[in-house]
Amino acid sequence: MTHIAENKRIGVIGGAQADRASLEAAARVGRLIAEAEAVLVCGGLGGVMEAAARGAKAAGGLTVGILPGSSPSDANPFIDVPIATGLGYTRNSLVAMNADALIAIDGEYGTLSEIAYGIILGKKVIGLATWGIRGIVPADSPEEAVRLALQPESPSQGGRDGKSSR
Amino acid sequence: MTHIAENKRIGVIGGAQADRASLEAAARVGRLIAEAEAVLVCGGLGGVMEAAARGAKAAGGLTVGILPGSSPSDANPFIDVPIATGLGYTRNSLVAMNADALIAIDGEYGTLSEIAYGIILGKKVIGLATWGIRGIVPADSPEEAVRLALQPESPSQGGRDGKSSR
Amino acid sequence: MTHIAENKRIGVIGGAQADRASLEAAARVGRLIAEAEAVLVCGGLGGVMEAAARGAKAAGGLTVGILPGSSPSDANPFIDVPIATGLGYTRNSLVAMNADALIAIDGEYGTLSEIAYGIILGKKVIGLATWGIRGIVPADSPEEAVRLALQPESPSQGGRDGKSSR
Amino acid sequence: MTHIAENKRIGVIGGAQADRASLEAAARVGRLIAEAEAVLVCGGLGGVMEAAARGAKAAGGLTVGILPGSSPSDANPFIDVPIATGLGYTRNSLVAMNADALIAIDGEYGTLSEIAYGIILGKKVIGLATWGIRGIVPADSPEEAVRLALQPESPSQGGRDGKSSR
Repeated sequence: MTHIAENKRIGVIGGAQADRASLEAAARVGRLIAEAEAVLVCGGLGGVMEAAARGAKAAGGLTVGILPGSSPSDANPFIDVPIATGLGYTRNSLVAMNADALIAIDGEYGTLSEIAYGIILGKKVIGLATWGIRGIVPADSPEEAVRLALQPESPSQGGRDGKSSR
Repeated sequence: MTHIAENKRIGVIGGAQADRASLEAAARVGRLIAEAEAVLVCGGLGGVMEAAARGAKAAGGLTVGILPGSSPSDANPFIDVPIATGLGYTRNSLVAMNADALIAIDGEYGTLSEIAYGIILGKKVIGLATWGIRGIVPADSPEEAVRLALQPESPSQGGRDGKSSR
Repeated sequence: MTHIAENKRIGVIGGAQADRASLEAAARVGRLIAEAEAVLVCGGLGGVMEAAARGAKAAGGLTVGILPGSSPSDANPFIDVPIATGLGYTRNSLVAMNADALIAIDGEYGTLSEIAYGIILGKKVIGLATWGIRGIVPADSPEEAVRLALQPESPSQGGRDGKSSR
Repeated sequence: MTHIAENKRIGVIGGAQADRASLEAAARVGRLIAEAEAVLVCGGLGGVMEAAARGAKAAGGLTVGILPGSSPSDANPFIDVPIATGLGYTRNSLVAMNADALIAIDGEYGTLSEIAYGIILGKKVIGLATWGIRGIVPADSPEEAVRLALQPESPSQGGRDGKSSR
């Protein structure tokens, strides 16, 4: 695990509660991220975050959880590096900031704020059965989502033009 | 100006760039907020934020600007109480946190993050020609937007169910 | 109260618990700040913060409280403009950021962090019976503290040299 | 590297500029932290932070850098897990929050704010040639500092009484 810092970092965002299909997709996404030797970044709690981290650990990956609370022990058991922030929901921007690309799975308004921050920060945001916001690149499967997330950003794909996105 | 702290606080959110119609709507919204003796809270910069603050000051209101940068002097000239945060876009949650209700006018992804935070925090979010997100209460005019914003929240109107909102 | 934004802003920092002498000094400092038509900025809670705000309101001043919690109603009753942050103790830097000069009265480690941020940000930090840190300008009375706080910064007085300050 | 999350995390805080002796002490501290299989947490930038991370990597440790800026690439080359925050100096509280104990080496006011946060949060703060603040446990050598940092907290050692600390 030399040069961890040079590995890609993929954020997985989604709700703390999610249905079975979303959790399975998240676990598959996490596994594929780890198999690609990318680092998984997430919000560190339950639901989609935990399923993705579980998947990544099953494949021997490294997982980072950026937590809303002030105690690192709030993290789910599959997080290697918990980062306590004490910022509450305000930490959502930090999840987006620490990923090269984001994969949104299901999710509600917290996920929506992370999608918005991802696009503000010029990150590619891939969507799996999540909000239908313009600016999100839709994917049909975990495989496609991770493939898109790992793809180098094409130069013409700006993150912020946005105007037509409402 | 006794008991300022007991006055309602209405947040106006929207883009730093906006077209003429949006700016006029924002100025009108700001004026109506001030006429209702509510405090205007916004992000303190240009575009919709400045137009709303200008409208509020024209009617003698009090204006608060919660700024992304670390210098209070970044505020537009119509802000009475600039609050520097040094948090960058991460300050968007603080705008939502400091309003009893939010009026979104136009806007892009920064506005979208503020809408999301407003709904997460259980605030009523009223929309004027902005994102078509479920959870936003649409309004057709500045008058209707401010009327809705000042209306006491009805008990049945939860902020977080959200699930059907994608 | 036109042009509030152009008035000086003086931060008063100190503990949420304090002895009678400190509270009396804080109230006097608050009153003198208001009499000088400066805005009082503080952490919005009890003890020194509340005493200073009470003093400022007794003289008709404007008071801003930058709160650790996410509810504006956490503010003491003498705060005109409560700013909820939801940042916990992390909000201490924002208190320093929003003052042209700081007056520290008594206080423990939270106050110490605010003193440190004040000096980092190049603000004059005046001390009344508080930490004996180099970099703090000591004052012997509320009158002297407020006079020093309102004095224009002399050009030779750098905020960050610091090295000899331990 | 199983169970990283269960390893102790030791924060090393100190200035971005430091003299040779401090840098050597920091590198030694970093190495000893890694040899004890603890994770090094720091602010991710230069000076003491970089020397400590360099020492930890030389012994095969894991290093986390909690950065003030919004780009993970701001981290020094010895950081495995850079965490961008975009919070500026406000991130100092997060460094303290993510360590079980802190070792302060040299440093100026930024370090002082981290010491204050460490004590507020009830963490043991060990000092090597740094601020002479009551509440810091002084150490005479890197070896003693790391030994003290790894020692279980004794129950009688409260973090916040503080009152006698000025």
